[in-house]
Amino acid sequence: MARIVVKFGGTSVADIDRIKNAAGRIKAEADRGAEVVAVVSAMAGVTNQMVELTDQMGSLFDAREYDVIVSTGEQSNAGLMALALQTLGVQARSWLGWQIPIRTDGVHGKARITGIETGELERRLTGGEVAVVSGFQGLGPDGRITTLGRGGSDLTAVALAGALGAERCDIYTDVDGIYTSDPRIVAKAKKLAAVTYEEMLEMASLGSNVLQTRSVELAMNHGVRLQVRSAFSDAPGTFVVKEDEIVEQQIVSGISDSKDEAKITLLRVADRPGVAAGIFGPLADAAINVDMIVQNISEDGKTDLTFTVGKGDLQSAARLLQNNQADIGYEQLVQDPDVVKISVVGVGMRSHAGVAQKMFQTLAEKGINIQVISTSEIKVSVLIAEEYGELAVRALHAAYDLDTD
Amino acid sequence: MARIVVKFGGTSVADIDRIKNAAGRIKAEADRGAEVVAVVSAMAGVTNQMVELTDQMGSLFDAREYDVIVSTGEQSNAGLMALALQTLGVQARSWLGWQIPIRTDGVHGKARITGIETGELERRLTGGEVAVVSGFQGLGPDGRITTLGRGGSDLTAVALAGALGAERCDIYTDVDGIYTSDPRIVAKAKKLAAVTYEEMLEMASLGSNVLQTRSVELAMNHGVRLQVRSAFSDAPGTFVVKEDEIVEQQIVSGISDSKDEAKITLLRVADRPGVAAGIFGPLADAAINVDMIVQNISEDGKTDLTFTVGKGDLQSAARLLQNNQADIGYEQLVQDPDVVKISVVGVGMRSHAGVAQKMFQTLAEKGINIQVISTSEIKVSVLIAEEYGELAVRALHAAYDLDTD
Repeated sequence: MARIVVKFGGTSVADIDRIKNAAGRIKAEADRGAEVVAVVSAMAGVTNQMVELTDQMGSLFDAREYDVIVSTGEQSNAGLMALALQTLGVQARSWLGWQIPIRTDGVHGKARITGIETGELERRLTGGEVAVVSGFQGLGPDGRITTLGRGGSDLTAVALAGALGAERCDIYTDVDGIYTSDPRIVAKAKKLAAVTYEEMLEMASLGSNVLQTRSVELAMNHGVRLQVRSAFSDAPGTFVVKEDEIVEQQIVSGISDSKDEAKITLLRVADRPGVAAGIFGPLADAAINVDMIVQNISEDGKTDLTFTVGKGDLQSAARLLQNNQADIGYEQLVQDPDVVKISVVGVGMRSHAGVAQKMFQTLAEKGINIQVISTSEIKVSVLIAEEYGELAVRALHAAYDLDTD
Repeated sequence: MARIVVKFGGTSVADIDRIKNAAGRIKAEADRGAEVVAVVSAMAGVTNQMVELTDQMGSLFDAREYDVIVSTGEQSNAGLMALALQTLGVQARSWLGWQIPIRTDGVHGKARITGIETGELERRLTGGEVAVVSGFQGLGPDGRITTLGRGGSDLTAVALAGALGAERCDIYTDVDGIYTSDPRIVAKAKKLAAVTYEEMLEMASLGSNVLQTRSVELAMNHGVRLQVRSAFSDAPGTFVVKEDEIVEQQIVSGISDSKDEAKITLLRVADRPGVAAGIFGPLADAAINVDMIVQNISEDGKTDLTFTVGKGDLQSAARLLQNNQADIGYEQLVQDPDVVKISVVGVGMRSHAGVAQKMFQTLAEKGINIQVISTSEIKVSVLIAEEYGELAVRALHAAYDLDTD
């Protein structure tokens, strides 16, 4: 019998009516004969309220207590969803993380799942009962509740789908799939029928908020077929699958833009071994993520070094580097928050030359200057002035033939 | 080392500031060298919100899911209280019912505690850590969360105090103790330094909302010394203890009034064996509690029967009896919701005659007609017209010398 995992995000279960709507979708799957595991998030906003209460309690932070507090939103929603299903005549029960149990490591607040004991859950699934699982939470080695960090309910769903050998894992959310570009920028953006894990990973790290990187990685590692779809429409969503499942692969699947970038340039850095470590070591110690890095050709033993950090980290990164100016040995620090990263993503570019060239040419034709370039096997990213962002995305969307049906 | 259990009710932990205030009281006990277990309720109103959500979900009711949902308020408050204590420099951790575990029977929604495994809790108490326990909840034989019904957090506190051999169990609430009468009615009502378990039990069943009957029974059975006190004042509260702990026992400790009474009279009932069972059996089956019962002297094989039920049950009780009129064999049903039950309570009346006589005489002097009388070893209750309630309470308070200091 087909076994599937469905996951409903916070906006899909934000109130009683939406929980009932979601229950209707679960019932439809059960009526089609599937064994269904439904993972639920907290009502939208509830987890933030809990975090707020925790913050008000004072400056000391005990992640073990934080987990006890913030996990309650998923707990009550699991119970409510089980009741909603019963009201529709569907046999259902709620499962909390510690009841299955979903075992995690001891890193409270952002735990990693280490194993899932599915025995009893499977026995009851086979008996025709829908399992409603509270997302975002597990049981630590200390016997206490752990939470899985941002996007944790997606992780719960994917991990369960993997452990249960589910046919697929449907992520119900408030968007109806993955688009070739942001529809708010590109009117002709189209929903993709399917993308590969690798593309989804690039898109997630490039600013798409639909799926968290960790969930996609986990799905890829366990071969879990994901579907991103809307809780408010019956239209099929976008499948995230292995490359060989996609019959007609486009060369480029989508154009992403990320405004959460800020540029730092260090002018006239001494070009000697160890200098990069001297710059990026302190940033890493301060948990500041560095993304694109480019180093100019050296001239008389000095070089210029440019890199990007998250906009929120710009000030602390700059301060850190200024405090270490003597050690690092640079002449001047220039910072620029008004930049945007535009990326072209597609597994097809592995076997097709000229993708990057087309990008550079398209931008040049529009008079857009490229500040930094970085590439991976399946994407090309450029950093440009923020004011050109929308223009660039629309021009590239047309250039790679994504405007046509 | 002294070991105590303290319990904070919903109004005492209704928001962040009140939780901090309560944490201050816990710290004061710890600073005095006590090993402290703190049981916390949900923020006032939160449990009702959860019940409301459950009600909105539909007509089907699964008490196992209800328990998952309504237990979240105590869970988050336990975490918040642990954080509040840590902020004050007190070593503390939260314990959920399933973590200790507090084992219960399987009657979800109103479970009974069957055992508490205190091993790990005691080890950590001895190590100087305050244990913050979420009230109202336990672990059922099915491995799922159970809740203990109304007043459940008091039960948690008393049961823990019994299991841990605590020196006393302080119930912090929004009143500062047990009074000789309702201070809103009797201006001269005084706070009692101590009452016996038996008196507290009578008072609880007579409409005092301070402690639930089950908690007092449990305290009595395990010899747990209770103190009812205010979370918002440093004044000592009222101790609830064994009779021999009270040095100067008054004959009468207090005057209670309960407006939650309604009277039903069945006129000209056939006076034959089995007729009482025919009347009260169906009421019991419908979970309608019958309190006072009086039967008049039989005349020509017919008798009149009067009894009281809760005001909220009056309509359904009357309907039930009317539907069974032929079976029961009575001529007329008369109902009256405008009654009040006034009770005089005191263990001293066991050894002092004339307590009831003084009550009847005092009421007669005020021209108040007594409709029904019921007595136990330590109380006398009368049912009178509701409009005379306050007058009766004040007159009796004076008559038993409770007005004087």
